[in-house]
Amino acid sequence: MRDVAIVGAATTQFGRAQWSLPKMLCEAAHGAITDAGADPKAIDSVYVANMGAAHNNRQAGLASVLVDRMNLYPAAADTVENGPASGASAVKNGFLAVASGMFDCVLVAGGERMREVNNFEATEFVSFLSHRYAEYIYGVTLPSLAGMFARLWMDKHGVTPEHLAMVAIKNHANAMNNRAAHIKMPVTMEGLLHSPDASMNNPYVADPLRFFDCCPVSDGAAAVLLVAADKAKDFAKKPVRIVGIGQATDTQAVHERPDPTVLTAVQTASRKAFDMAGMKPADISLAELHDAFTILEIAQSEQAGFFGEGEGHKALERGETQIGGRFPINASGGLKAKGHPVGATGVSQIVELVFQLRGEAGKRQVRDAKNGFALNFGGFGNNVVATILAKGA
Amino acid sequence: MRDVAIVGAATTQFGRAQWSLPKMLCEAAHGAITDAGADPKAIDSVYVANMGAAHNNRQAGLASVLVDRMNLYPAAADTVENGPASGASAVKNGFLAVASGMFDCVLVAGGERMREVNNFEATEFVSFLSHRYAEYIYGVTLPSLAGMFARLWMDKHGVTPEHLAMVAIKNHANAMNNRAAHIKMPVTMEGLLHSPDASMNNPYVADPLRFFDCCPVSDGAAAVLLVAADKAKDFAKKPVRIVGIGQATDTQAVHERPDPTVLTAVQTASRKAFDMAGMKPADISLAELHDAFTILEIAQSEQAGFFGEGEGHKALERGETQIGGRFPINASGGLKAKGHPVGATGVSQIVELVFQLRGEAGKRQVRDAKNGFALNFGGFGNNVVATILAKGA
Repeated sequence: MRDVAIVGAATTQFGRAQWSLPKMLCEAAHGAITDAGADPKAIDSVYVANMGAAHNNRQAGLASVLVDRMNLYPAAADTVENGPASGASAVKNGFLAVASGMFDCVLVAGGERMREVNNFEATEFVSFLSHRYAEYIYGVTLPSLAGMFARLWMDKHGVTPEHLAMVAIKNHANAMNNRAAHIKMPVTMEGLLHSPDASMNNPYVADPLRFFDCCPVSDGAAAVLLVAADKAKDFAKKPVRIVGIGQATDTQAVHERPDPTVLTAVQTASRKAFDMAGMKPADISLAELHDAFTILEIAQSEQAGFFGEGEGHKALERGETQIGGRFPINASGGLKAKGHPVGATGVSQIVELVFQLRGEAGKRQVRDAKNGFALNFGGFGNNVVATILAKGA
Repeated sequence: MRDVAIVGAATTQFGRAQWSLPKMLCEAAHGAITDAGADPKAIDSVYVANMGAAHNNRQAGLASVLVDRMNLYPAAADTVENGPASGASAVKNGFLAVASGMFDCVLVAGGERMREVNNFEATEFVSFLSHRYAEYIYGVTLPSLAGMFARLWMDKHGVTPEHLAMVAIKNHANAMNNRAAHIKMPVTMEGLLHSPDASMNNPYVADPLRFFDCCPVSDGAAAVLLVAADKAKDFAKKPVRIVGIGQATDTQAVHERPDPTVLTAVQTASRKAFDMAGMKPADISLAELHDAFTILEIAQSEQAGFFGEGEGHKALERGETQIGGRFPINASGGLKAKGHPVGATGVSQIVELVFQLRGEAGKRQVRDAKNGFALNFGGFGNNVVATILAKGA
């Protein structure tokens, strides 16, 4: 298996796009190619991560579309879908394409244009991930699953609404230093929970989760360029290696899990990624976790192995997961504030780690970042991909 | 790169399914696992090829669904979409997963349940593959593109409606010997074109293509099990190796091609597959081509390299492409008569080749089949995958 390096990375502005999904994918792809100083003609394979184009944008075969718009013929092209974990799945497949030796220069782009449908349709669409006969037909949505999960977690570990708000406050603050972030609005404990207007400004979406516990519905795209590690020196920027990938599945219906607060796929995917990298959680400098809901950042920070059981919210409370803390989480702003264009998210987590490991993250730079960890969470934890990146070739 | 073998293959009955898409995928997957005599617990990665589940069946993350229903946790799972070439794309990604050394036993299943929507919606949905702004918004559908292509091809090469009908007659006859085929109805030149009722029984769909020049809208699933070739002896059946894969893209909008009758992606994908296999067209015993429309079998038989320019319809006329002929094409019945459940098609072509190369194809067996070629055609030729299989490990 060949070693694989990321030599280019880019993201579009996340938010409410005024342009088409193909155009966003092109912008991210062009950014990654330019960042690498690569010759587009060298690209022999393209992966696009996307969940909703056929449903929301009346466009299938999105990888072919990107090849077409970028004039990358005759590059191979495949679209990869794994719900909200589509992005990391596409990076994994790009990794395999290079690692196998069959392809030499692989472009992986992820994108979503959610806002072509309204928020209700978007929520409905995302709920196609739930079990059609055991969840979906009863009206289950992802926010409702997260609400039930949050209630159980809070009861089990003594997590309070204040802890959830701390995730939002931290990630909104981080996003203030991320040009590409969707939400650039600092929030405070007072504003979110304790002011007389809090129940109006931050209403319940799925009790105990409030509006500011949920990620926004975003448009956006992100891209990375992968090559064999021994070729990485031919490109403009310092390379970052993909040293670990772990992927794991769990029951689709949440109620079939012996303990719904145990995210088995998060545990297994993370363990596999650490095993492949030959690392342990203490070797990781920073993590991008899948905080589609604030509770998920706390839960994943424990179940990926960074904190002991019931310790995640305490570490958060102590400020350890802030930039400047012992183990910064979601320096980018996370899904919470950077935004969550579904297919783009997993790729954008990798993009953030690349920027951090190269020391290019500006005001949100994590000092001495050597190894980065990304967790991309599909469905309600039924298909999870963990990726570990390391500085240097 | 490790050599990769197919050790199990299966397909469901194609046609109008009375059951859900996940159930069809399970049936095919279970068939492939049983065929191989494999331990399901050994499966460490699952790919599902599908184009329309989110749009037509309100179900996303289909690979996770298959893992769930088959109890294959914690296997990695990704859904691959490449329009009508999704099946071969998924097989390619399964190949890369094993070839890289990262995964050892990969299940690739393809499936589609088209009939959950009506035929008009299905045709509309498939047209999402066309260029949204240069084709789709003007009402272009895949049958209309094929009609225009057929007219140009017929004018250029002297192909007649009778030649098109010969493809249908041959493939319908082949399907009579394929239990899994959707259409089991022999058709004759008299019935299709020359009887007084022909214009009623076989009306124009997109002039010059008539009803019997078009594949049906089918439901179905197919699956194969891939392992490293040096492990193939541990399984029940004689292995078949994947020796060549070529994939290529072309302009999305057909009118942007210098000559619309030249299917550049078919030529390039085929050449790449031959190069990888170290073979030439004369080494191939039989082919499964993507005859979504009869004209495509003729065109692909030339542009993949099996016949010279303008010779495809002459070889057809001489009976060379029948079972028992010099170079049988679509012994399975092809998309034309076996049916075309979009995501399943590319996998089912590989399944047919496996059966043929093992000598298990019964009455439709091609004698002395050593190497098989499959061509899976996405969009209107904008993303094509060619796969070459060889007998033995």
